[in-house]
Amino acid sequence: MNDILAYAETDPVLAENDDGAREAALRTELLVQQYELLAREDRAILFVVAGLDGAGKGSAVNLLNEWMDPRHIRTLAFGTPTPEELARPMMWRYWRELPARGRIGIVFGSWYQALFAQAARRARDEEALESMAAAVRRFEAMLVADHVQVVKLWFHLSRDAQRARCARLAANPDTAWRVSPDDLKVAKRFARLREAGERVIASTHAEPCPWIVVPSADDRFRAMRTGEVVLAALRTPPPAPSFAKPVKVADGRLDNLDYGDAAMKRGAYEKELMHWQARVGRAVRQARFGRRSLVLVFEGKDAAGKGGAIRRVGHALDVRQYRIVPISAPNDIERAHPYLWRFWQHAPTPGRVTIFDRSWYGRVLAERVERFASRRDWMRAYEEIDDFEAQWVAHGAILVKFWLSISDDEQLKRFREREKTAFKNFKITPDDWRNRRKGSQYRRAAADMLAHTDTPHAPWHVIATDDKRTARVQVLRTVAQALERALSTGDET
Amino acid sequence: MNDILAYAETDPVLAENDDGAREAALRTELLVQQYELLAREDRAILFVVAGLDGAGKGSAVNLLNEWMDPRHIRTLAFGTPTPEELARPMMWRYWRELPARGRIGIVFGSWYQALFAQAARRARDEEALESMAAAVRRFEAMLVADHVQVVKLWFHLSRDAQRARCARLAANPDTAWRVSPDDLKVAKRFARLREAGERVIASTHAEPCPWIVVPSADDRFRAMRTGEVVLAALRTPPPAPSFAKPVKVADGRLDNLDYGDAAMKRGAYEKELMHWQARVGRAVRQARFGRRSLVLVFEGKDAAGKGGAIRRVGHALDVRQYRIVPISAPNDIERAHPYLWRFWQHAPTPGRVTIFDRSWYGRVLAERVERFASRRDWMRAYEEIDDFEAQWVAHGAILVKFWLSISDDEQLKRFREREKTAFKNFKITPDDWRNRRKGSQYRRAAADMLAHTDTPHAPWHVIATDDKRTARVQVLRTVAQALERALSTGDET
Repeated sequence: MNDILAYAETDPVLAENDDGAREAALRTELLVQQYELLAREDRAILFVVAGLDGAGKGSAVNLLNEWMDPRHIRTLAFGTPTPEELARPMMWRYWRELPARGRIGIVFGSWYQALFAQAARRARDEEALESMAAAVRRFEAMLVADHVQVVKLWFHLSRDAQRARCARLAANPDTAWRVSPDDLKVAKRFARLREAGERVIASTHAEPCPWIVVPSADDRFRAMRTGEVVLAALRTPPPAPSFAKPVKVADGRLDNLDYGDAAMKRGAYEKELMHWQARVGRAVRQARFGRRSLVLVFEGKDAAGKGGAIRRVGHALDVRQYRIVPISAPNDIERAHPYLWRFWQHAPTPGRVTIFDRSWYGRVLAERVERFASRRDWMRAYEEIDDFEAQWVAHGAILVKFWLSISDDEQLKRFREREKTAFKNFKITPDDWRNRRKGSQYRRAAADMLAHTDTPHAPWHVIATDDKRTARVQVLRTVAQALERALSTGDET
Repeated sequence: MNDILAYAETDPVLAENDDGAREAALRTELLVQQYELLAREDRAILFVVAGLDGAGKGSAVNLLNEWMDPRHIRTLAFGTPTPEELARPMMWRYWRELPARGRIGIVFGSWYQALFAQAARRARDEEALESMAAAVRRFEAMLVADHVQVVKLWFHLSRDAQRARCARLAANPDTAWRVSPDDLKVAKRFARLREAGERVIASTHAEPCPWIVVPSADDRFRAMRTGEVVLAALRTPPPAPSFAKPVKVADGRLDNLDYGDAAMKRGAYEKELMHWQARVGRAVRQARFGRRSLVLVFEGKDAAGKGGAIRRVGHALDVRQYRIVPISAPNDIERAHPYLWRFWQHAPTPGRVTIFDRSWYGRVLAERVERFASRRDWMRAYEEIDDFEAQWVAHGAILVKFWLSISDDEQLKRFREREKTAFKNFKITPDDWRNRRKGSQYRRAAADMLAHTDTPHAPWHVIATDDKRTARVQVLRTVAQALERALSTGDET
C-alpha cells in the first residue's frame, strides 16, 4: 500500500458541468437497492465511519439517511463507555447493536477508537497495537462469515482543506455547533494524526474488509463518493472469507473415562455436597468476587444430569446473584444475527454468576451433527469461540466448562425411568431417542470440541455422571476450587 | 379486611407428624404444572415477593427454584436503580424484565419498594401514597389483562420470631451472610413497619391481584405454604379483570379538516422549512435539553407522508442524536409479552430524540379495524396508553403526536404514482389497496383515538397533508414550538 491517503489530499472537487442528473440516478438506485436488501434479508451491512475529525463524517451520514429510507438504517454512535458498558467486556456494546439481516447500521466511534488512540500516542506500543489490530481483523472476518458485510470508509482531506472547512462552518451560527474543539485541533497535529491513520489502515486493510478512502474537502465530491461506495456495497455481497481448517488435535479423555461402579452413599454425599456448597457460597461472597464474575457452562448428552447439577450449584448461591440461561434452538431474531450475538446478550457483570444450560458449543455439537451448520461454519467456530471466551476472561470472568459424560447403558436406564415417572415424562421426547441413535457422531463431535477448545483460560472438566452423587460433588468441588484459586491469586484464569 | 397480618403473627408451625409425603407430592405436582404452563404458553406468571426483612423471603424463593425447574424461572432482584435505570422512566426496569408467556418470574424489590418506603415514613404523605397505589393497581390490572398473572406474597411473622430467626442465622458462620443490617433493625421498628405493611396491603389488595400472607416463623410451614400458593396459581388462571368501557367523547377535527387547494411554492417552502429546521436544531442543542428528551409519534393512513415528514425532521438533527423506530406487526417475542412491552424497550433517555413511525396506537387503529385485537383489548388500550404516555412525560419527555391526514382523492393519486415509479414501487402493496377500501372504518378509529388520547401532556396535532410542502413545514413548526415552549418554561409538558 503506497500512501493510501495521498489522493485524498489533492482535495478533488466535483466537475462544474455535473448537472445533478448523476445525483438523482444515484439516489434512485440507492433506494431500490436498499429495499431489495430488506426484501432478501440475506445479510446485514455495517458501515464503519472513521477518519479525520472535521472531515464531514457526520454530514456524509446525514446525507445517506436523506437519500435512503432512514427507517431501516440504524446510526450507532459510541462515545465514552457508560457504566453499563464498562461493566461488560469491551466488545459487548458493539455486539448488542449489530443490525439484523436486511438492515443497515452505520457505526461512529467503532472498535477503531481504541486502535486509533494507541496509534496516535507519542510512545506507541507496537506490540499492543498489533494485537489490537489482529483482534479487529478476526472480529470483522467473523462478522462477514456470519452474514454481516463490513464496509469501512475513511474520510480524509488535506490539512489546509480541513482547516478551511472548520473555519467556514464555525463562521455560520447555524453550523457552528458542528465544529467540535477536537476538529479545531486537527490542523496542529495533522502530521501525527495522518501517520496514525495510515498505521491503523495498514494494519486492518485486509480482505474481506478493506478500507475505502473518501476525499472529503469538497462537500459534493464527498457526498457522491460516499453514495457510490454505499451503492457498490449494496449491490455486491462481500467475498466469502477464507477459511482455515482447524489443525488436527486429539483429546482422549472420553475414551478412557472411568464411569465407576460404586454409588456414593447418601450420608457421605450429603456431607460432601454441603461442604463444597458452603465453600462456593463463601467464595462468591468475598469482596474480591465483586470485581470478578463466574460463568459456568454445562454441556452433555440428554439425561447426563445437567439439570440436577445446575440445581445443586444454585443451592449454594443467593438466588438474587445468579441467572440460569437455558439454550435451545435459536429464534428468528437470533437467527437473523451472527451466531455469538445471543450469548453476548448475557455477558457477565461484576459480582454475578451466569449458568449456561447448554451454550455456544451447540454449533460444534448438535448443529454439526444435525447439519444445521455448514462444515465451514462449525469448523471456524472453534477459533471464534476461543476468541470469544478469551474476551470474557480478560474482563474478569472465571469460566468453568463441564462436559457431563454418561455411559450408553446408564442413559438408556434413565430414559426408561423418565418414561415411567409422571413428572419426569416431560423430560423425554422422541428427539432424545433419535439423538441417542446418533451416539457415535455426538461422541466424535464432543471429542473434537474438547480437543479444540480446552484452553488455559477456559479449560474443560470432563465428569462421568453414571453415579449422580459422585458427579454432583465433583461439579461443586470443581467450581469451588476454580473460584478459590482465581480469587486467592488475583490471577485472571 | 380485618387485620390481615394477625394470623401470621401466631407463628404457626408444621405438625410434627407430617412425614414428608405431603412435600413430595407437592414437589411432583409443582413440576408437572410448571411444564404444562411451559407447553401451553397461555400466560406468564409473576410472583411478587414482599414483606418483612428477615422473614425468609430469599429462602422461600431458593426453595421454589429447587422444587421446580429453575431453568424456566427468572429471579428478578431490583435494588438501588443503576444509572441506566435512572435515565429512564421509573417503571422501565420492571417492564424490560417481564417474563414471556410460559415463563415464571419472581420479583424482589418490586414496584412496592417505593410504596412501602412512603408508607413507612414518619410524616407520610397520604395523597402521594394513594396516587402511587392507584398506579400500582392500574399496572397490575393491565398485566393480568395482557396475560401476565400477578401473584403477590407477603411474608410475615411476629416480632419475637423475626428476632429469633435472625439471631439463629447470625450465630452460624455458614448462614450469617444471609442476615443483613436491615434485618436486625426490624425488631426495633416492628410496630411502624407492620403498620406500613398493612397500609400497603390495604391499598393494593384488589382483584385481580389480592395479597396472600405467608406465615414465616417456621421454615417448613413457610416452605409448604409458599409451594401451595404457587401451585394454586399455576393451576388456576386469574379472573379476567373487569373492563371499563371508555366514556363516549367526540373529536370533530377530522370532519372539518381543510385540505387546502393551493400548493406552497418551492421557494417559500425551502425558506420556511430551513427556518423551522434550524429552530429545532438549536433547541435540541440547548444545555437544558440534556435533561429532557423528545418523542415524536407519526400516525396516518398509507401515503399520508409519514416517511417524508420524518426525513425532514431528521435533517434538522445530528444523526447521532436521534433514532427512528419503525413499528409494524409484532414478532413472536413481542407477541409473547404484554402489548406495551416493545415500546418500553425504546423508552427515551436524556438528550435524545426518538421518532416513532407508527406506534403504540396500532392497537386502536389497525389492530381494531383488522380485528387482531379483541374489543375489550382495544377499548382498554385508551386508558393504558394515556397512563403510559404520562409516565414518559413525567420523566421529562416532550411528547408530540401527529396524525397526518390525507384526502381520499390525494391518496388514490399517490398510490397510482407509486405503482408507476420504479423506486416507489416498493412502497405499495396489495395491503395498501385493501386498507384503502376500509377507509371509513379507519376514519372512525382515528376519530375515536383523537377523542380519547388527546391529553394535556400529550396532545395530538392533526395535519392535512394533501400538499406535502405545507404539511412538512407545519410538522417542523409544531416540533420547534413544542420544544421551545417546553425548554423555556421548564414546564414538563
